[in-house]
Amino acid sequence: MTYFRTIGLITKPSDILLADTVRTLLDYLHARNKEVLVDQSAGILLQHTGSAGVCRQEIARRCDLVIVVGGDGTLLHAARSLIDHDVPLLAINRGRLGFLADISPDDMIEKLDKILIGRYIEEHRYLLHAGVVRANKTIADSDACNEVVAHVSGSVRMIELEIYIDGRYVNTLRADGLIVSTPTGSTAYALSGGGPILYPSLQAIVLVPICPHTLTNRPIVVDAASRIEVVLCRENTTPARVSFDGQADVDLIPDDRVIIERKVPTLRLVQPEDYDYFQILRAKLRWG
Amino acid sequence: MTYFRTIGLITKPSDILLADTVRTLLDYLHARNKEVLVDQSAGILLQHTGSAGVCRQEIARRCDLVIVVGGDGTLLHAARSLIDHDVPLLAINRGRLGFLADISPDDMIEKLDKILIGRYIEEHRYLLHAGVVRANKTIADSDACNEVVAHVSGSVRMIELEIYIDGRYVNTLRADGLIVSTPTGSTAYALSGGGPILYPSLQAIVLVPICPHTLTNRPIVVDAASRIEVVLCRENTTPARVSFDGQADVDLIPDDRVIIERKVPTLRLVQPEDYDYFQILRAKLRWG
Amino acid sequence: MTYFRTIGLITKPSDILLADTVRTLLDYLHARNKEVLVDQSAGILLQHTGSAGVCRQEIARRCDLVIVVGGDGTLLHAARSLIDHDVPLLAINRGRLGFLADISPDDMIEKLDKILIGRYIEEHRYLLHAGVVRANKTIADSDACNEVVAHVSGSVRMIELEIYIDGRYVNTLRADGLIVSTPTGSTAYALSGGGPILYPSLQAIVLVPICPHTLTNRPIVVDAASRIEVVLCRENTTPARVSFDGQADVDLIPDDRVIIERKVPTLRLVQPEDYDYFQILRAKLRWG
Amino acid sequence: MTYFRTIGLITKPSDILLADTVRTLLDYLHARNKEVLVDQSAGILLQHTGSAGVCRQEIARRCDLVIVVGGDGTLLHAARSLIDHDVPLLAINRGRLGFLADISPDDMIEKLDKILIGRYIEEHRYLLHAGVVRANKTIADSDACNEVVAHVSGSVRMIELEIYIDGRYVNTLRADGLIVSTPTGSTAYALSGGGPILYPSLQAIVLVPICPHTLTNRPIVVDAASRIEVVLCRENTTPARVSFDGQADVDLIPDDRVIIERKVPTLRLVQPEDYDYFQILRAKLRWG
Repeated sequence: MTYFRTIGLITKPSDILLADTVRTLLDYLHARNKEVLVDQSAGILLQHTGSAGVCRQEIARRCDLVIVVGGDGTLLHAARSLIDHDVPLLAINRGRLGFLADISPDDMIEKLDKILIGRYIEEHRYLLHAGVVRANKTIADSDACNEVVAHVSGSVRMIELEIYIDGRYVNTLRADGLIVSTPTGSTAYALSGGGPILYPSLQAIVLVPICPHTLTNRPIVVDAASRIEVVLCRENTTPARVSFDGQADVDLIPDDRVIIERKVPTLRLVQPEDYDYFQILRAKLRWG
Repeated sequence: MTYFRTIGLITKPSDILLADTVRTLLDYLHARNKEVLVDQSAGILLQHTGSAGVCRQEIARRCDLVIVVGGDGTLLHAARSLIDHDVPLLAINRGRLGFLADISPDDMIEKLDKILIGRYIEEHRYLLHAGVVRANKTIADSDACNEVVAHVSGSVRMIELEIYIDGRYVNTLRADGLIVSTPTGSTAYALSGGGPILYPSLQAIVLVPICPHTLTNRPIVVDAASRIEVVLCRENTTPARVSFDGQADVDLIPDDRVIIERKVPTLRLVQPEDYDYFQILRAKLRWG
Repeated sequence: MTYFRTIGLITKPSDILLADTVRTLLDYLHARNKEVLVDQSAGILLQHTGSAGVCRQEIARRCDLVIVVGGDGTLLHAARSLIDHDVPLLAINRGRLGFLADISPDDMIEKLDKILIGRYIEEHRYLLHAGVVRANKTIADSDACNEVVAHVSGSVRMIELEIYIDGRYVNTLRADGLIVSTPTGSTAYALSGGGPILYPSLQAIVLVPICPHTLTNRPIVVDAASRIEVVLCRENTTPARVSFDGQADVDLIPDDRVIIERKVPTLRLVQPEDYDYFQILRAKLRWG
Repeated sequence: MTYFRTIGLITKPSDILLADTVRTLLDYLHARNKEVLVDQSAGILLQHTGSAGVCRQEIARRCDLVIVVGGDGTLLHAARSLIDHDVPLLAINRGRLGFLADISPDDMIEKLDKILIGRYIEEHRYLLHAGVVRANKTIADSDACNEVVAHVSGSVRMIELEIYIDGRYVNTLRADGLIVSTPTGSTAYALSGGGPILYPSLQAIVLVPICPHTLTNRPIVVDAASRIEVVLCRENTTPARVSFDGQADVDLIPDDRVIIERKVPTLRLVQPEDYDYFQILRAKLRWG
């Protein structure tokens, strides 16, 4: 049986430090007779391939595996752009281990040898989908791999947010903001904010208040099927915005409602067969 | 349709402050033509009924509702003693609101009026079952509504615990102990230890290290179907024990394994139809 | 002996809810034959006095007591504006108890009866003085009663700050920001950020990282005589600014240095003779 | 000028891993014509010296420097036993860096070369002195380098403690216990309990509640001259004890008062001239 005939390659446009890794990877894949589609955003790296690159849409449509080489930002961006297509992702982290991937440039050939003959596991991670509703109209929406954050913008004053879960009022939060995070995001910003670690496959969402005025406003973990609604209070006078994976921002005005739900479908991550989340935790958090 | 013909009544043996509440309750139930079985541990309160009380087993077998009147300790104890029988529980909290119940002596008649005509909701809470294994033999086991805690005993030195989830090594914890908590317990000791709040119906378990030596040993939330194993390290020299709901203790020796799993079946809690967990959170944690 | 012949009165310009309190206060002081200078910013409230109000400078120069009526913001602002003059402050908190004051509109007459005959204590609180140095030139400076905060501006990404204490390198912080707080500020934003409570008279400064990437970046308490330097790293690309008491902001560019030192002189606070800081803590933090 | 003619040597009795380090050290000191008094508790290591060892009292009386080789426990014990004598301490940490010492066996000769010709700094750390008062009689007392802890003993239930500072009531704490820590201890147990780091020379004491029931019971930092009183509540039914540096324990009964004050005199620590506390923090807490 043959695994992964057509492979997409996405990498950070301008990072020339990645060039060697990507060239090695391309040579390796070509030697294996794989058809490789390089994302057009790869820029300078495309000179090596002699091609102009293809658009993200074509990659999503034609590939049966997409390899992403880069840091957390590149990975999160690629995941969001491919989530609506049924294509698995394999992440190679630049330099240091990441929470999403435990393949590094150093061991990528060894790991790929096994993955390309089917010795891998497929892990499913859910994303969030969030819409910003103003006067009953959705004015913006986005997916998020890690977290959706409603937060103060350009000030150290608190904002006031009303939180609802499945239509029921939870509380009115006075804080720097609120992080609504997936298990994937629970080791990112949410952890810095005092949230717990959620095991990646757990079907749960965690709400982490950022520097809340009321000290008992602790993180809350709810079912991933919950519908979370975060409303900027009418009385709020501090500039506020909502952010998706820390990469796209929308300014909020009072009465705006941010509605957050689990995204369907889920992200398919290809992991080495010896993938061990706890080992990554131990390494990243320097346990023991 | 008639709801709840035979009703059990469990209350804290020696707490005479509860006597009035219990008498009012008995009169009310008798006026409604309910058969009431009073738990023999009710002691002095039984004089009012003119009966000798029945054993817990008979209550569990014959009743189609058990009302528990008391504090958190009484509730947790009753829940554990009834969990293996398919009988729903209704909790009346002594004086102040509890996380398990939002019926107080003051409003119990009003709420019961509705509950006894079927206007209630049934909530399911899962318990934990834990066994202590020494040299491949289970030397003790117990259920827990709130949490199982492995902890230092009678000293301020750290103990060393190895943690495994579903057979996979997580880390070696040096700490005062480890709390393994249900969602129900997440607002009890686990919250004091720095854990998150888990929504009661969430199928998840949270592991909260108590004063860990390594500051990055943060709470971890895993699926409730996980098998958690906590091993007292061979090198550990500090006295340690394991505790179930803070009520039953077993001393541990090095190499002892505490195995913790979700209990089947679940606890059936009868709640008023307007039951609102977030309202309880707001009141108990003094939000806003 | 006569205490406090000439008394200044500062209140929030447009808050008409305070009008009654201020009128009662003015009548009381006039009945006591005190000369009262009303701050010109009192606006609408001045109609009652038939005067045009005097400038803050004149208040500071001529008064031997200044009464400030308002919320935390008004208090902090007044304190900063009077700190360079040797005039004691008496704070009356609008409605609810504040950390700086335990006099409320309800008990102000009773407390003033005693204070005006000398039955009071004078408490000293130190402020911070901070300067922003760009290319060896101080481009801005300000005092702060509560805290100086270097923080991200209008984004959820981290900023990078180098911290020095008395010229010695402490660490490079990746976080939402850093709070440098007085004991007075330790119950304000610093507490929300996870900092400890510092007893008001303690000669110490606390540095509290806001949502630090490295979980071991814990709050540090140093001597109040320390010189704290916070440098926005050269590589930092996220917009950042520095804020004084959450009221005045200065945008930072890479290599900017914020230099923070204890202000001389200190703030003189007039407190009722039965002033009890722990009672305020218990009330504000709802202990017990 | 000659520094340190007579040098005491204290090491952990039975730790044979330290034998090589200690022998190297003895040879080095003898080669420098120092008179070396070895603590009699050094046990097996004394065979090398051909002497019987001297008692701790004689070391304290005759030496003008005492070198302690061992882990944190050995150091804390030695510090307490020498504090009432005016003799400086030099700590060599076994294997890994400690918060008290940044001399390791690997670099000890290099550092001693400089220290013995006067190139060192003397750092002063204060200790705590605590007494346990029962029915107006002091039934036990002890010094503590790191912390005095009142804590639950052999159970997971909370104890109830009344806290007083300088005779004024602070609050009634329901918790696993209370840590009263010096700056030296602030990076030990107090840090695990959620306390801040106190710079070593800061004249402050920090009170850190252990897993408090009330989430707003946060660490409090007070002046080192404060008199702290911790009373086990009359109603308390959970076994409790007080512990000094985690090494000596005294069982408490209701109404017992633990009175904690700064010890006079202070501990004199000899540190290398390039001693840098922040460097130790960065290394131990793995910053950056």
